[in-house]
Amino acid sequence: MTHYAEEMDRLKERLLAMASHAESAVARSIRALVERDDALAREVEAEDNVIDQLEIEIDDIAIHLLAKAPLATDLRLTTVAMKISQNLERVGDSSVTIARRAIDLGAEPQLKPYVDIPRMAAMSLEMLRDAISAFIDHDPAKARAVVPRDSDVDNINRQLHRELSSYMVERPATITRCLNLMVISKSLERVADHAQNIAEEVVYLYEAIDIRHSAPKPNEAQNPGS
Amino acid sequence: MTHYAEEMDRLKERLLAMASHAESAVARSIRALVERDDALAREVEAEDNVIDQLEIEIDDIAIHLLAKAPLATDLRLTTVAMKISQNLERVGDSSVTIARRAIDLGAEPQLKPYVDIPRMAAMSLEMLRDAISAFIDHDPAKARAVVPRDSDVDNINRQLHRELSSYMVERPATITRCLNLMVISKSLERVADHAQNIAEEVVYLYEAIDIRHSAPKPNEAQNPGS
Repeated sequence: MTHYAEEMDRLKERLLAMASHAESAVARSIRALVERDDALAREVEAEDNVIDQLEIEIDDIAIHLLAKAPLATDLRLTTVAMKISQNLERVGDSSVTIARRAIDLGAEPQLKPYVDIPRMAAMSLEMLRDAISAFIDHDPAKARAVVPRDSDVDNINRQLHRELSSYMVERPATITRCLNLMVISKSLERVADHAQNIAEEVVYLYEAIDIRHSAPKPNEAQNPGS
Repeated sequence: MTHYAEEMDRLKERLLAMASHAESAVARSIRALVERDDALAREVEAEDNVIDQLEIEIDDIAIHLLAKAPLATDLRLTTVAMKISQNLERVGDSSVTIARRAIDLGAEPQLKPYVDIPRMAAMSLEMLRDAISAFIDHDPAKARAVVPRDSDVDNINRQLHRELSSYMVERPATITRCLNLMVISKSLERVADHAQNIAEEVVYLYEAIDIRHSAPKPNEAQNPGS
């Protein structure tokens, strides 16, 4: 194997490591919320720098690869890797936001059992896993299938936003807790957005078709939770 | 001038056009809010696709430039241009969010004159302009000076979030309007984050030093408005 191919493999391997850290961070931030586990939330916060460092490392490898004047397909792979990495870095940030809000919520009595939020988390994480495995398996059809699922997560976020708004009006004492839950719901909606972005990059990579901005804005569309 | 240099100039020119569209979108969305001008808000929404198309065009030019195996500094310039473009695209999204919330707010009586929000908008837009002009003028010192200003915008967002939270508790009838204002404030805070990201990329470009993730998270730091 040439040195170039080895380095390309390293790029993919680091990207996979980053994806796995990002997924785990989201999952653990939600577990910290549901189980009211402050120590776990603080762990998620503290470990975000691992994800940040991976982003920098991936950029370095990518710039290095670009400098070797590879084929057009390698160029696309490399720039797509940089974009995927940037999206994963933001998934990491979302999990930190969730973890911090979980800590705030842990300090007050729980409003009610969380049902929608773990469901949204499961959906967003599945989108993320599918987008990454579409990238690894060269499977643009799988990536295309991720894109429309974003609107399911949007809908739950919107509905939860409405419910929490009404709840705040009825019981102003719960406003702070409701605001924290809105932020968590919005953060999960963003994880789904990033999964969608990654999926779109994967389609572009393997089909050389740019499907970004061809549908209504994922994170918008008159979304009261945006 | 070689064809390569011409294309590089075109890349910069398109990026400047994109920056100017993004700045104008934010400024007009805030004007729509303050002047309760629905038509202007709808214009901002409708014109977001110009920014989206510029992002795609810039990526195309960048990929094309990368394929020509340029010097290491040209590689950095090209990948940085792609990242700046991605940040500007999100500034465009923020302005659409603001415009939509301005329309919602226009349908109800105004809570009070807006003071902090136009101030935040002015600060964020100035950061954005400085980051872009640091890029154009090869001025990493100017870019470095943008970075710490993000925390001023964060502070106003945080304070506004606190004020609006208390207001909601006192007057539950204003909850919907307060939530809309929180989203607008948060959107402006994000514009400042994107300006900071751009500034960090400019430092990286001209000093080859990566200053990302070297300070506390811009959009976080126990920020109740995040």
